Amino acid sequence: MLLEGYKPFTSPIGKGHRGIINGTNSFHLIQTCPSSSARAGELVTPHGIVPTPVFSPVGSQATVKTMTPEELKNIGITMVVANTYHIYLRPGISVIETIGGLHQFMAWDRTILTDSGGYQIFSLARLREVSDQGVTFRSHIDGSQHLITPESVIQFQESLGADVIMVLDECPSYTDSLEEVRQATERTHRWAERCQRSQSRSDQALFAIVQGGVFPELRRKSASFLTSLGFSGYAIGGLSLGEPKVLTQAIVEETVAWLPESKPRYLMGVGSPEDIVKCVTKGIDIFDSALPTQVARKGALFTWQGRYNIRNSSYSQMREPIDPDCDCYTCRNFSVAYLHHLFKCQELLAYRLATIHNLNFMNTLMNRIRNAIVNGTFSTFRDSFLANYQPTDDNLRLAQKQKWLDAWNHRKVSKS
Amino acid sequence: MLLEGYKPFTSPIGKGHRGIINGTNSFHLIQTCPSSSARAGELVTPHGIVPTPVFSPVGSQATVKTMTPEELKNIGITMVVANTYHIYLRPGISVIETIGGLHQFMAWDRTILTDSGGYQIFSLARLREVSDQGVTFRSHIDGSQHLITPESVIQFQESLGADVIMVLDECPSYTDSLEEVRQATERTHRWAERCQRSQSRSDQALFAIVQGGVFPELRRKSASFLTSLGFSGYAIGGLSLGEPKVLTQAIVEETVAWLPESKPRYLMGVGSPEDIVKCVTKGIDIFDSALPTQVARKGALFTWQGRYNIRNSSYSQMREPIDPDCDCYTCRNFSVAYLHHLFKCQELLAYRLATIHNLNFMNTLMNRIRNAIVNGTFSTFRDSFLANYQPTDDNLRLAQKQKWLDAWNHRKVSKS
Repeated sequence: MLLEGYKPFTSPIGKGHRGIINGTNSFHLIQTCPSSSARAGELVTPHGIVPTPVFSPVGSQATVKTMTPEELKNIGITMVVANTYHIYLRPGISVIETIGGLHQFMAWDRTILTDSGGYQIFSLARLREVSDQGVTFRSHIDGSQHLITPESVIQFQESLGADVIMVLDECPSYTDSLEEVRQATERTHRWAERCQRSQSRSDQALFAIVQGGVFPELRRKSASFLTSLGFSGYAIGGLSLGEPKVLTQAIVEETVAWLPESKPRYLMGVGSPEDIVKCVTKGIDIFDSALPTQVARKGALFTWQGRYNIRNSSYSQMREPIDPDCDCYTCRNFSVAYLHHLFKCQELLAYRLATIHNLNFMNTLMNRIRNAIVNGTFSTFRDSFLANYQPTDDNLRLAQKQKWLDAWNHRKVSKS
Repeated sequence: MLLEGYKPFTSPIGKGHRGIINGTNSFHLIQTCPSSSARAGELVTPHGIVPTPVFSPVGSQATVKTMTPEELKNIGITMVVANTYHIYLRPGISVIETIGGLHQFMAWDRTILTDSGGYQIFSLARLREVSDQGVTFRSHIDGSQHLITPESVIQFQESLGADVIMVLDECPSYTDSLEEVRQATERTHRWAERCQRSQSRSDQALFAIVQGGVFPELRRKSASFLTSLGFSGYAIGGLSLGEPKVLTQAIVEETVAWLPESKPRYLMGVGSPEDIVKCVTKGIDIFDSALPTQVARKGALFTWQGRYNIRNSSYSQMREPIDPDCDCYTCRNFSVAYLHHLFKCQELLAYRLATIHNLNFMNTLMNRIRNAIVNGTFSTFRDSFLANYQPTDDNLRLAQKQKWLDAWNHRKVSKS
């Protein structure tokens, strides 16, 4: 049986403030941190309970790369993020409808969130033309031309049947001017209204996306406007696009200040352990990012001291697991030397064992964060984590991001 | 705990003729087919019981491509074949010694057979020079020069610690002349004697390899000579190298006739379902081949009607699993449409789900073969299987093999 169906809400921790989203979706705050904006809660969907703060792995093409649903469950993953843009292009929305929806197609019976594809259209697709009607673009796969509107994006996501769906947004580049970002943000607002009006299913939670780039005033206006429309949750989009991390943190703080306490807050595309800990402090509930799985496939493995690259020749004879205290399948069974060997041979098992470890690390991190909030020890946990965890050098990170951005800007959107 | 250690012998079926190999390894015949040479038996090793006839998947680089040991066990795999040539070059024998042997390194606590690397040196390595001393060759990875002798190959395999180890053989090409094959076969015999003399561990079963190309008289001489030396088992090497399948079958029959009944017979490199059924009929107990896993990664999936290629566009909307009666993880959870989508997107999960299915098919096939032999219904099973199973077109297969052989002969061995 692929779909276990609705699981009735039974809070494992206790009752809290309830913020009913709709008939089958709700969000409850269970505990807030006395010395920061951190909070523990529960997102309840037709496919189970998602304890928050949560990190959700990305399965853009209806698969979390290298993982089976069974492995994700064994790790404790409660929600995955799939992508409307990717699935619309391949295999096509109608195929998913034929099979009986995205849960059935992926054989994932827990919560799914689908992103609208806004970000992907602005980062992957070619020859974009944006107007108030929607976006015309050419597929990055075969060059075929498509028009996507706020209405069609909702229709697609209703066909896919995810538990949480997203509005169509226009995602400006980090290097765009104040005026360009203002226009994109205002269009995002008009599109959000149209998405809301066109929603016909009552069992899906629709989240709005706050834009406004790195301009605090635009962020405030965007958060206030979207909040006035009354969505089931609020995402912060348009960050982690090449700006310095201190700026990301500042904008998150600015934006969260204008969002309602009772609704879930989702920071899109942020997924490094240190960023997550910092943004939980600022009141974020939901994170998603390809980073933990993407770097795993390059051999970068998370530990509580930072990231290690298993391809380094110094690991060729190491008998120990990556982390002797880790309870993941990889660490329980394999030496660092074996993983090093698999990476050197480019064996497919390498990418999978590394992904299992990194996703298990992320899930353990989120459990520790949540327990600390519930137990009132979050600020101690945060300080201890950040003191021990050596983040990737920010200059190196920005240089890598810049390369990507240069390519991105090269294909800059033509606006009308 | 990675190694469960020795499992005492308890036959699930009953007692049979016992052919003790040595202190910790033995082979028992349990049932023979009244109307063919097919036989059911058990190979007992320090790492468990291997019911025969058995198909053993190939894990040349200490990993069955895409699979964890847990998955192989869930399928029911009892033995894997690793390769001394590959492991000697990367990560190196000393690394495996440091980690505590190949079982520990791979986290595989069931039976391992290591091939000597003879075939790989003659098919993969560059600039080979063969003399009675051994083979000098250059690594296909980095061009480094190496000398391997019958003595060093045994020493390597004793360090790796597999349950079944193989002699070093010289594997002639299918297109070599009678005289060339005769010389290679005689050298294989001298090497077999030296391998036998240099064996120092008593807990590993050493198998000889019968050569002789497609020349019945050479095969007879090779089988008789090696049998006179008294090995723990006998492999048939140098087949499935581009000759027509009818010739393969004929040579297998010729060779088996000269092998002792009480010892296991291992046909190297044969792994298509139809060939296995035919060669079981001729008295083979052990098979290994990369074919089921290799074709899986190209999208070719086994069913009882033949192979289907999941990449075919006609499968894009199919709701059913590959085989509704199959009990593998892939068929229990995923539609053909989902597998088709993963292959089209080149998602890593595709290769793994296809491998699970094909290995499960092979294991189910071997279980059915064995049960039929035990129940005295093997010839009915074989006729029914061969009537339903549509093999790959032999002309197409030979054309593909010829391309590979042309490249092979292009790098033809220089002999001294």
